[in-house]
Amino acid sequence: MTATETTKPWEELARLAESGSPPELEAFLDELPASDVALAMSRLSDDEQAQVVTVLTPDHAADLVEQLTDVQAVELIEHLEPQDAAAILDELPSDEQADLIGDLDNDDAEAILDAMAPDEAADARQLSQYDNDVAGGLMVTELLKYSESFTVGDVVEDMRERAEKYRDYDVQYAYVCDDSHCLTGVLRLRDLLLAKRSQRIAELMIHEPRSVQDHTTLDELFDFFESHHYLGVPVVDVAGCLLGVVQRAAVDEARSGQHDSDFLKTQGIVGGEEIRTLPLLLRSRRRLAWLSVNIVLNVMAASVIAFFQDTLSAVIALAVFLPIISDMSGCSGNQAVAVSLRELSLGLVRVDELLRVWLKEIAVGMLNGVALGLLIGLVAYLWKGNPYLGLVVGGALCLNTMIAVSIGGIVPLVLKRFKVDPAIASGPILTTVTDMCGFLLVFGIATAMLEQLTNI
Amino acid sequence: MTATETTKPWEELARLAESGSPPELEAFLDELPASDVALAMSRLSDDEQAQVVTVLTPDHAADLVEQLTDVQAVELIEHLEPQDAAAILDELPSDEQADLIGDLDNDDAEAILDAMAPDEAADARQLSQYDNDVAGGLMVTELLKYSESFTVGDVVEDMRERAEKYRDYDVQYAYVCDDSHCLTGVLRLRDLLLAKRSQRIAELMIHEPRSVQDHTTLDELFDFFESHHYLGVPVVDVAGCLLGVVQRAAVDEARSGQHDSDFLKTQGIVGGEEIRTLPLLLRSRRRLAWLSVNIVLNVMAASVIAFFQDTLSAVIALAVFLPIISDMSGCSGNQAVAVSLRELSLGLVRVDELLRVWLKEIAVGMLNGVALGLLIGLVAYLWKGNPYLGLVVGGALCLNTMIAVSIGGIVPLVLKRFKVDPAIASGPILTTVTDMCGFLLVFGIATAMLEQLTNI
Repeated sequence: MTATETTKPWEELARLAESGSPPELEAFLDELPASDVALAMSRLSDDEQAQVVTVLTPDHAADLVEQLTDVQAVELIEHLEPQDAAAILDELPSDEQADLIGDLDNDDAEAILDAMAPDEAADARQLSQYDNDVAGGLMVTELLKYSESFTVGDVVEDMRERAEKYRDYDVQYAYVCDDSHCLTGVLRLRDLLLAKRSQRIAELMIHEPRSVQDHTTLDELFDFFESHHYLGVPVVDVAGCLLGVVQRAAVDEARSGQHDSDFLKTQGIVGGEEIRTLPLLLRSRRRLAWLSVNIVLNVMAASVIAFFQDTLSAVIALAVFLPIISDMSGCSGNQAVAVSLRELSLGLVRVDELLRVWLKEIAVGMLNGVALGLLIGLVAYLWKGNPYLGLVVGGALCLNTMIAVSIGGIVPLVLKRFKVDPAIASGPILTTVTDMCGFLLVFGIATAMLEQLTNI
Repeated sequence: MTATETTKPWEELARLAESGSPPELEAFLDELPASDVALAMSRLSDDEQAQVVTVLTPDHAADLVEQLTDVQAVELIEHLEPQDAAAILDELPSDEQADLIGDLDNDDAEAILDAMAPDEAADARQLSQYDNDVAGGLMVTELLKYSESFTVGDVVEDMRERAEKYRDYDVQYAYVCDDSHCLTGVLRLRDLLLAKRSQRIAELMIHEPRSVQDHTTLDELFDFFESHHYLGVPVVDVAGCLLGVVQRAAVDEARSGQHDSDFLKTQGIVGGEEIRTLPLLLRSRRRLAWLSVNIVLNVMAASVIAFFQDTLSAVIALAVFLPIISDMSGCSGNQAVAVSLRELSLGLVRVDELLRVWLKEIAVGMLNGVALGLLIGLVAYLWKGNPYLGLVVGGALCLNTMIAVSIGGIVPLVLKRFKVDPAIASGPILTTVTDMCGFLLVFGIATAMLEQLTNI
């Protein structure tokens, strides 16, 4: 093994930041894949991370910040002096500025905004008013905007003069506005290329272009880009004034972030994404918030068992099957939850189609319930040689599978309809209800045929 | 309510397809948001769906197919006559052609390829050789390619002549090749715009442009686009010949699909995405594949209880707490699994960093274990008035929480290292091991202090 293979990238990163050599540090970061940048930074202390970004020029530091995960970027920015943070934020695209500022504590955000370039700060203040999941919060304000009276030559002249400023812009379209800044047309770069220089852009542009309002939701934007092969769409206010552009990529990224956070929520990570570099108490508290609700629900469900202590004493073998029935019903129900969450996010089911979902689920539930019930019934019968024990646990699991898929399929729709986040709440509701039903079924059937069971 | 509000979109869709009026049907589909197209099609029978796409022109049918989910598109194409399917596939971008063909049965795929336009079929055959998650499988072959000897004027002339052909292309860059089709440069559209018509493109282009090989993986591509502000990257073979272009949007979409399918797998939907319009037996079989493994593991774990029947008979109250300890340990462990899966997908942890992950998890596990243990111990004590019962169940849950987060944190890394899909396998391994440990802890501690417990 050579030395470069054994030195970890974060050790090298810390060393270069320590030695304070900007060109070497920049060259090193340029060579690292983006995911290794995030990894390496996550292994440095807060102070070391701050040192890295202050050694870099603000421009390069902004590139680095863009490669971090959102959680990392916020932690890092909060640890910087306001003027250092402001210099970096000045270099970020307007949508990322606004996202970061929205995620900071109010005091931190104000201190940084005060230290930013006045025009950048004004933009950022305005954009950070919007929620992250509407067009206003997803748009960038860096765009090419021309007056209707311009010719193609005027546009080309402007692009040549401000080449440096436009360098980092995603220029696919230029936007045409009238004197009151209302959007009247869109120019495609390729049409500009094919046109004569003397032609007026008002003749060349796409008139009455499609646009969205600043409060258009993420789901509506996603639909828009699914229906139209555009790379970006202009955002206007109620008066039709051009505010910015939402890029297709920004919408895709936001959707994907939403799905990731849904995934974490179904697994009990609530209150924000967890990465293991976050402070211990914060991680513990966020996880415990979910666990403590669950334990209360669990105690409620298990209290059913307490009511049937006499039956249980008589047929102690039942205790072996209670956790199995609880867990397997949870598994079957969670499958139905997952399919419902997915169909909701794909728009393949409406929140009021409870009957449709139930019919689809109960059909699967009957098949799988019978299969699982036979299997566990057989195990119980073979273990104790008593067919009635098999009948009790097999019958209970079979019926409870049907209950579990019904609840698992329907609960996400109902929660969504009542504006409760189905990713967070579906699981706990499902397991509590199915546990209770499962225990009731086992003991209900067992109590009914107690005479046949007590000879075990 | 007006008539349009009460008529469901799929009823209208079926009616328009039945009446066979292409312009009306096209107008109706143009008005529907993309997600409603997928919803409406999902409510039609296979025959009705086939009728809709055969009434449309192949071009419009292709637009519709692009708005469906992948599972829907495959089901629909398989239900069409090969020549109808071929006409639609001819109109799709090359990457979607290849995806669809790759997902079809081999016989169906061959029949459709035979009926396609020869050049489209040749492209599609070649692209469908690639896996979906490498550059070759993600690229499109629709691109602008020019010889080094061209001038800006030649390029503009070509773009004007073939404007119709290029209409649906995502043209951000044009690619420049030498006589042996090797990629030598990239032209940005905006540089073309600013240049003189007489200039040779070889002088204007970006030389030695960044490119990727056809076998570059999705993760590497994602890293590439994280590090570079490009909208697309050219794909070359080992000899440097230009094969196609991977768009940033295609990479984002593939990543997001991968995350969605990971989510479904953690919840027990394996063997492919499920939507509820799939045949009942297929849905049942896929779900049962996961459930039947789980039930065997569950029986193994629960068999621990069977070994301690004497202890259980003596202290029947323990039976109430077994499902609670099983479920709560599963919850804590699944939180650790979720964070590990997320950190792996973000590249924030390496598969060999077991010690780091364990230290981070055990710290949270100790805090949360003590909190949950105290809570459940208190419940047990208050219920039966016996502090030792509280000690048994509280101690067991506390220790088992630490075990659960350790296993939950580490197992995904180990599985990934041994190339087993951590999204599928982590959950079942976790619950089996933590159930066993939990039951052993309860009965181990209870057996040791049996005398103090039997007065309950």
